[in-house]
Amino acid sequence: MRRHITGFSNPTVKHLRSLRDKKHRRRAGEFLVEGLRLLEDARASGRLPRLLVMAEERSAHDLLARLEAEVEAAGGEIVTTTPDILSRITGKANPQAVAGVFAEWDTGLTRIDRSAAPIWLVAQDLRDPGNLGTMLRTGDAVGAGGLILVGDCADPFSAEAVRASMGAVFTVALAQARWEEFLGWLRGGKGQLVAASLRDAVPYRGAPYEAPCFLLVGNESQGLPEAYEAECDLRVTMPMKGRADSLNAAVAGAVLAYEVLAALGE
Amino acid sequence: MRRHITGFSNPTVKHLRSLRDKKHRRRAGEFLVEGLRLLEDARASGRLPRLLVMAEERSAHDLLARLEAEVEAAGGEIVTTTPDILSRITGKANPQAVAGVFAEWDTGLTRIDRSAAPIWLVAQDLRDPGNLGTMLRTGDAVGAGGLILVGDCADPFSAEAVRASMGAVFTVALAQARWEEFLGWLRGGKGQLVAASLRDAVPYRGAPYEAPCFLLVGNESQGLPEAYEAECDLRVTMPMKGRADSLNAAVAGAVLAYEVLAALGE
Repeated sequence: MRRHITGFSNPTVKHLRSLRDKKHRRRAGEFLVEGLRLLEDARASGRLPRLLVMAEERSAHDLLARLEAEVEAAGGEIVTTTPDILSRITGKANPQAVAGVFAEWDTGLTRIDRSAAPIWLVAQDLRDPGNLGTMLRTGDAVGAGGLILVGDCADPFSAEAVRASMGAVFTVALAQARWEEFLGWLRGGKGQLVAASLRDAVPYRGAPYEAPCFLLVGNESQGLPEAYEAECDLRVTMPMKGRADSLNAAVAGAVLAYEVLAALGE
Repeated sequence: MRRHITGFSNPTVKHLRSLRDKKHRRRAGEFLVEGLRLLEDARASGRLPRLLVMAEERSAHDLLARLEAEVEAAGGEIVTTTPDILSRITGKANPQAVAGVFAEWDTGLTRIDRSAAPIWLVAQDLRDPGNLGTMLRTGDAVGAGGLILVGDCADPFSAEAVRASMGAVFTVALAQARWEEFLGWLRGGKGQLVAASLRDAVPYRGAPYEAPCFLLVGNESQGLPEAYEAECDLRVTMPMKGRADSLNAAVAGAVLAYEVLAALGE
């Protein structure tokens, strides 16, 4: 279906605009992805938007034409509108010429198959959507099975997280769970829980990592609660040669993940 | 000197507000740092603000009292104002109760002493201030001599870069230079230029790193220009097991820096 929208007060415009807000995303079960590059990543990963919204004065593009055709063939909607209205939807003065609305998917722990990969990333109360997206991107790079979000994390379907993931949100499995729920699930099978820690820790290089290895990274400002660290099977420490005693959360996760990748001979 | 300001149109308010803008920071040679934690990091590193601006209804705090006393003793200015005006200055609905104005310092290459440390971070056209701040923070952690910003990078004195650095902007040496200028300086002494690359590269683990090692990270969306890679003494590659062929710039720099740290036996 194709439609052209010219009015700011059009209900579709209002709905798309509301998707910038987490509460509305959750209620609608939908999120907005901006830019042809990310939309193409999604398509390559087998995910098509329900709705494609484009500026009417966009330049012709083969990839976009293919995407339009696939969305229409799948029963999705194509909306054209003015650059002004597109700005209103994305909240940016210079929005990209195209955006898509995707259905959120199930992020229950039960969808995770721990035998699928030797490394898993786990984040606790990770609040920064940029860090969350960066962890997804790192997860893709190290061949992680997925990213498990524990507790009160940023929304992986926010525009900033999706953008920082560079498309990895479409390829890396995502789960969301409370800590107790995650722990119950983890202990129901094989899996080594590892945290970067300053307490009772061994050097991160040469530590006895075992697959499947779950790398737990804590909240940006508080780090991991002591009780969470105590639950870990292995606590490792990275050199800190300066004044500070911690790294950026996404950086710590990545340094650790690359070490585990090498240790497991992957 | 102490002053109380109640008017939005006060010239000091206008000046402080203008420091959110890079052009004004450059012209004034000053930048604004928000929050007692960062101000305390600065103090501990021997840097005091020229001016301290505080909400009049702030709660009493020992660290703040000490900072006030030191700023006054050094001939600086203490300004109290309303929470509304503080919001106007920082551009935040809920600003922290205190902010300080610091003089920018000389970031010329000539201030860099390459023999001071075995690892140096170099960023080319790094546009994201969060990535820049994160690299400073990583630099502190690995004991890097400093961060050298080559080309058109984000401003290290922006609020976002300072915040992401977690205070490392005050402890890690900073330099800014054009590429040709950097290269001329580098080749005027000992120094191995290393880049993460996909072209003609060796595995990053076990590569023949040598101190002082200059780790070059490229622009977020374009990566390093081919000519820049060609100038490198060593090109290394990290495993990429997923769909993407690159990591976040700050993450790539950190994984590499920790590898070099271990390789050099630091």
